[in-house]
Amino acid sequence: YTVTEVKTQVGAYLIGIGKKAFDIRKIGALDGIQDIHIVSDEYKLVSKKWKVKPTSIDLGDGIAIKDGDMAIITGPCSIESEEQIVKVIEHMKENNLTMMRGGVFKPRSSPYAFRGLGMEGLKLWYRLAKEAGIKIVTEVMQVSQIEEMYDYVDVFQVGARNTQNFNLLDELGKADKAVLIKRGISGTIEELLQSAEYVFSGGNEKLILCERGIRTYEKASRNTLDLNAVPILKSKSHLPVVVDPSHGIGIREFVPQMALAGVMAGADGIIYESHENPDKAYSDGQQTLNFAQSSLLAEQIRKIFAMRKTFDLL
Amino acid sequence: YTVTEVKTQVGAYLIGIGKKAFDIRKIGALDGIQDIHIVSDEYKLVSKKWKVKPTSIDLGDGIAIKDGDMAIITGPCSIESEEQIVKVIEHMKENNLTMMRGGVFKPRSSPYAFRGLGMEGLKLWYRLAKEAGIKIVTEVMQVSQIEEMYDYVDVFQVGARNTQNFNLLDELGKADKAVLIKRGISGTIEELLQSAEYVFSGGNEKLILCERGIRTYEKASRNTLDLNAVPILKSKSHLPVVVDPSHGIGIREFVPQMALAGVMAGADGIIYESHENPDKAYSDGQQTLNFAQSSLLAEQIRKIFAMRKTFDLL
Amino acid sequence: YTVTEVKTQVGAYLIGIGKKAFDIRKIGALDGIQDIHIVSDEYKLVSKKWKVKPTSIDLGDGIAIKDGDMAIITGPCSIESEEQIVKVIEHMKENNLTMMRGGVFKPRSSPYAFRGLGMEGLKLWYRLAKEAGIKIVTEVMQVSQIEEMYDYVDVFQVGARNTQNFNLLDELGKADKAVLIKRGISGTIEELLQSAEYVFSGGNEKLILCERGIRTYEKASRNTLDLNAVPILKSKSHLPVVVDPSHGIGIREFVPQMALAGVMAGADGIIYESHENPDKAYSDGQQTLNFAQSSLLAEQIRKIFAMRKTFDLL
Amino acid sequence: YTVTEVKTQVGAYLIGIGKKAFDIRKIGALDGIQDIHIVSDEYKLVSKKWKVKPTSIDLGDGIAIKDGDMAIITGPCSIESEEQIVKVIEHMKENNLTMMRGGVFKPRSSPYAFRGLGMEGLKLWYRLAKEAGIKIVTEVMQVSQIEEMYDYVDVFQVGARNTQNFNLLDELGKADKAVLIKRGISGTIEELLQSAEYVFSGGNEKLILCERGIRTYEKASRNTLDLNAVPILKSKSHLPVVVDPSHGIGIREFVPQMALAGVMAGADGIIYESHENPDKAYSDGQQTLNFAQSSLLAEQIRKIFAMRKTFDLL
Repeated sequence: YTVTEVKTQVGAYLIGIGKKAFDIRKIGALDGIQDIHIVSDEYKLVSKKWKVKPTSIDLGDGIAIKDGDMAIITGPCSIESEEQIVKVIEHMKENNLTMMRGGVFKPRSSPYAFRGLGMEGLKLWYRLAKEAGIKIVTEVMQVSQIEEMYDYVDVFQVGARNTQNFNLLDELGKADKAVLIKRGISGTIEELLQSAEYVFSGGNEKLILCERGIRTYEKASRNTLDLNAVPILKSKSHLPVVVDPSHGIGIREFVPQMALAGVMAGADGIIYESHENPDKAYSDGQQTLNFAQSSLLAEQIRKIFAMRKTFDLL
Repeated sequence: YTVTEVKTQVGAYLIGIGKKAFDIRKIGALDGIQDIHIVSDEYKLVSKKWKVKPTSIDLGDGIAIKDGDMAIITGPCSIESEEQIVKVIEHMKENNLTMMRGGVFKPRSSPYAFRGLGMEGLKLWYRLAKEAGIKIVTEVMQVSQIEEMYDYVDVFQVGARNTQNFNLLDELGKADKAVLIKRGISGTIEELLQSAEYVFSGGNEKLILCERGIRTYEKASRNTLDLNAVPILKSKSHLPVVVDPSHGIGIREFVPQMALAGVMAGADGIIYESHENPDKAYSDGQQTLNFAQSSLLAEQIRKIFAMRKTFDLL
Repeated sequence: YTVTEVKTQVGAYLIGIGKKAFDIRKIGALDGIQDIHIVSDEYKLVSKKWKVKPTSIDLGDGIAIKDGDMAIITGPCSIESEEQIVKVIEHMKENNLTMMRGGVFKPRSSPYAFRGLGMEGLKLWYRLAKEAGIKIVTEVMQVSQIEEMYDYVDVFQVGARNTQNFNLLDELGKADKAVLIKRGISGTIEELLQSAEYVFSGGNEKLILCERGIRTYEKASRNTLDLNAVPILKSKSHLPVVVDPSHGIGIREFVPQMALAGVMAGADGIIYESHENPDKAYSDGQQTLNFAQSSLLAEQIRKIFAMRKTFDLL
Repeated sequence: YTVTEVKTQVGAYLIGIGKKAFDIRKIGALDGIQDIHIVSDEYKLVSKKWKVKPTSIDLGDGIAIKDGDMAIITGPCSIESEEQIVKVIEHMKENNLTMMRGGVFKPRSSPYAFRGLGMEGLKLWYRLAKEAGIKIVTEVMQVSQIEEMYDYVDVFQVGARNTQNFNLLDELGKADKAVLIKRGISGTIEELLQSAEYVFSGGNEKLILCERGIRTYEKASRNTLDLNAVPILKSKSHLPVVVDPSHGIGIREFVPQMALAGVMAGADGIIYESHENPDKAYSDGQQTLNFAQSSLLAEQIRKIFAMRKTFDLL
């Protein structure tokens, strides 16, 4: 058995990996050992075999992402300007929405495309969001950004191209801040859980998993939203799971249906793109809702979730 | 322009395929021409560009599969015995379910696996279903079966391995009987519509499309249920769309969530597997609901669909 | 153990499928039992675990497809006219090519596309090929065609859309004629072998496997030619394996490289499309070689294969 | 038109991106403009539409990776010990091999797996390789490693999980050192070229592209080696292309065939894993050749490449 010692912001764990059978009670009875479990999964600390009780990710001010609740996260693909932020925040306040997404560092396939407003944009956004009591979810792309972004972020998002950027995951493990990890562009469910294990074993237990569509041969949609992943992730892990229908289908008029489908599949939250004028958005306009659509969707998500809670589902 | 003349059980159409632009009003004004449309899709008669109004598939006795309604089709993977059929029918009557699925000819990867009860099973099933006022949905695997099955079937199902069996599609075009076409194992949305076009242009307009999961790299589920396909198919075609969550995820305990997700994605029906004792089913037991689960699901589908109807979705 | 009795044109076999361990020598010693093997694969009679010696497919007149030799099969996508056939045959004679491919029944995604010259075309082709001492490889699409095509065909080809058309495979099992089975559009290597098992267990041992590219997310080529499949198939089965670079990449100028790569991957034959004037071909022109390219390729295939034979490869 | 100014270690370029047509001769005639091209691809500077002549990557001491030559890069998955390095170098010297691969920073799906010897291992390796006149190819995983690794590396490798780690690519653009970029785990050919464009436009023209297999539904091999990518990349870009058959198939006994297939597909180099005792390797043993196999393969690659040079291929 090789034993790894993990200390997180919450507790201390010993992970023993090996093949020999032994009587776990012998270890369980040792001084200082509180609890012991056998976890056959490749991932250990994020597994439901180790911790059955769902983990709640508390963002402060009574805002949380957790099982039994429905988090709604919305906002533009890219943070573009003060005016734009103000408009989105107004829209959110009107709809009692408290978690805002937006990119200030944008991963782009082409080096010649818009790469985001950077730290300046983030600071501006932070000031406005803070005043409004709104939490910030935004992508971190590299290790060196963690520190500079730290004070202005409520949830660090790890994008689909960085799901297996292990150095980034290691460093986020040291941060005392929630991390939302998107499934890789063609990542397996197993790999997503392993990536979460990286952050957890690095010390940070505040993790949220996100299904955002996978790459398949089908080109009628931008990605193939794999809603199967929702009940599977919920059954394998104690971490909350959110669904991103905007990237999942990539077609504006179908985002609401897919969001609602995500709720019924068992998601603990929905993250979707909205903008005052999607056709003028700097990026992702084709999959971004306008405010009227967004208000309607938020209402529908709440209604459908209220009904789901009355159902006896796994 | 190459012109194909299509005569169906409902009407007569001329399909002109070519690239030159012309004034369609000139043709529209000719004697005997009722209506004329330009359809840029590769498929023509199944396209919504040609016919905007949704097509209703009437199975008689007030039973239909159509937009604005929620068809629930259930039953075992394989028809196994008289006792089994009786049990399923009882379960269906208790839940006001009127469309029963089941296989008598089973496509199996291995030549040594159970291949179904064949015509004898179908006749037995037909007698019992007829008495109960229940409609039969069952797979036809080859041209020669169409005629022998004809009198005992309400909906011919084309399985995922036969979606591009063009001879079978051609011959089903001559049948005056509804046809439910499953998407190919790795079929595109476009190919599914082209396959429907085969049957339609062969003369049969009574078509239902079915999303049942596609093959991807992800192996945590049997297939990847592509619910994106539902709104996309509904926007491209006037034909009703049903979702098969049993094959779509392949894991019993998650079938209900995925069925409900399918409803919210916009499906006109759900087709799922049920059996008195799934663990003893001849095939697909791992994805088959027992009767208690099936009753609960049917009720949930109806509730969620009733709520969906109050929403303003595309 | 469930036991299936298989009688082929060559021998009689008993396939016992089950899980209990027993001493195979006890059965091996019974009267009339010549040989006995344990085959852990799902497929049995096509497995190398059952028969180590490579199977040679003899087409008569000293023409064969077999391990240790390099079959070159060429010809147009579709048989179009007498003149076209004559031209191809002349080209083949000049290059000592003896196996000609061509379609008379064409599977087409759209019902409005050219579907081939049918039996008339086949009879014409047969007359000309017979005179020239050339063997015919052509696709059979449905059960009813087997009988009418029988006298005019040397190798029945099962197309990628029919790899799991189990009724067709069953019936081809009764034919005393070679069958070339293409891998399904997104078929696994395992499924291809299972499909071969269908034909073999139906009675026909004369089988050839064909890798022709699979469907993936990559759209820069028509399909993704999976040359990994060649050594894997060769190691799992005693049947010969041919590679189709024309469908495998779908881009004319790269067909030669991929053909040669197929030879080095261990193929027993190459099947590629050629035409006097590819740009005027009724179908697949974009991936079809002209005669100059074809002559050059045939020469290169032979040279590279001669070198491969001097190598010590698996 | 948005214009980006690019200065590399070799030259200065202006990239104008936009849609309006104009007479390029007007710009071409301006003072200081040496040459001007229209490039319709998304990538610009790595495109063959901009530079037809193949780029040669010179590593010093007469060692290069380039079109018209056959680079052979071999070595273990992980650098393990001084003894191991010495053994590999001996093996390489015996076979006139001059480029050695090996990992000191290992990306691993699980946080509990061996992550490599790090800088200490690299320095040890560098000392031994330098003495032997052997060039070092090794993976860099994050921005902060570039500087510390710089003096000990001849070719920085970007692994399949980092192909779209845009910050890493940006920073490698500032390094005056060759970079080998592997195709992403499910990366498209287009994305690989865009990633190369990142490094090039960052200032570094010394780029090598690598096909290493993609993720598909087929699980009989570790990845699906996409040899189609070789002629396609060679036709789209002026950069050299190498093939990694070890990761491409993942099965030791089939690595040689796939390497040779890669040569015939048109590769400019082969990179494969070798180890004195593959079964005891810390990682990837199942796809690693022993020295006898490696010697034989190097010889076969050279023979087959010599024959390829006599062929008239694209």
